[in-house]
Amino acid sequence: MKQCISVIVGASLLLGASGAFAQQAPKPEQLIKWRQSVYQVLAWNSGRIKANVDGQFNKDEVIRAANAIAGLANSGIGGLFAAGSETGKGWKETATKPDFFKNPQRVAELAGNFNREANELAKLAGSGDVAAIKVQFGKYSQTCKACHDDFKSKD
Amino acid sequence: MKQCISVIVGASLLLGASGAFAQQAPKPEQLIKWRQSVYQVLAWNSGRIKANVDGQFNKDEVIRAANAIAGLANSGIGGLFAAGSETGKGWKETATKPDFFKNPQRVAELAGNFNREANELAKLAGSGDVAAIKVQFGKYSQTCKACHDDFKSKD
Repeated sequence: MKQCISVIVGASLLLGASGAFAQQAPKPEQLIKWRQSVYQVLAWNSGRIKANVDGQFNKDEVIRAANAIAGLANSGIGGLFAAGSETGKGWKETATKPDFFKNPQRVAELAGNFNREANELAKLAGSGDVAAIKVQFGKYSQTCKACHDDFKSKD
Repeated sequence: MKQCISVIVGASLLLGASGAFAQQAPKPEQLIKWRQSVYQVLAWNSGRIKANVDGQFNKDEVIRAANAIAGLANSGIGGLFAAGSETGKGWKETATKPDFFKNPQRVAELAGNFNREANELAKLAGSGDVAAIKVQFGKYSQTCKACHDDFKSKD
């Protein structure tokens, strides 16, 4: 959550249909759409890793997916939960519970756990040690679940 | 596009509301939702870099955004355009033009350009050389625009 400020102050550009970048202030609806998108991309890549550790293991795919996850984990997702985005519709109504915004310390702790395990997963991915990657994927997944349990409404 | 197969064969897990991962075949609608999400996340991070090179420069934020972009560029986005996903609704109707699926060679060329410039941007981000990063961001943006011009419907 420490990384919020520069996003709020500095970012807010949209990729227009033309491919040009047009600057404007990030509205809550845009922040919500971005964060909903981030979690979809995390789900896509998490699912790929799970499929690989549970089934046929493709080391390259696991590396690609784990690096994508780590890149997002380190990107400053907290900035997408800026004040003002407690309610609103991105792709759909936000599923973030009001309690999320009232417990910054707990959120920071959960986010820190997520980042740590995501980075550890990316470090391990290159080893090709399927058993170790599977264990680490479990730890990583638990950090997703911990936050969902506390702060995500059921779809 | 070379990276499609393992996605089609291996992936397809959804992050459920409970945080658990449940396996099922990836439907075209899911692939479309994932790719629409990927492009939103790219737009978010591209916008952050543009805001930094045009305004007050925050090296850490540029590194984070550039690494997120590179992580996605290298993740195997082509797999999200698997056969069967030519039409359909993810978050919304797909904006990918039918021609995209009929020109794999051109698509591979454009994707290769995108990946190359995204990786170069991530490499440069750590240098803190604002002028060089701005130039490289321009090259990267052009690869976005080139593909949108040919293969993306107007919103």
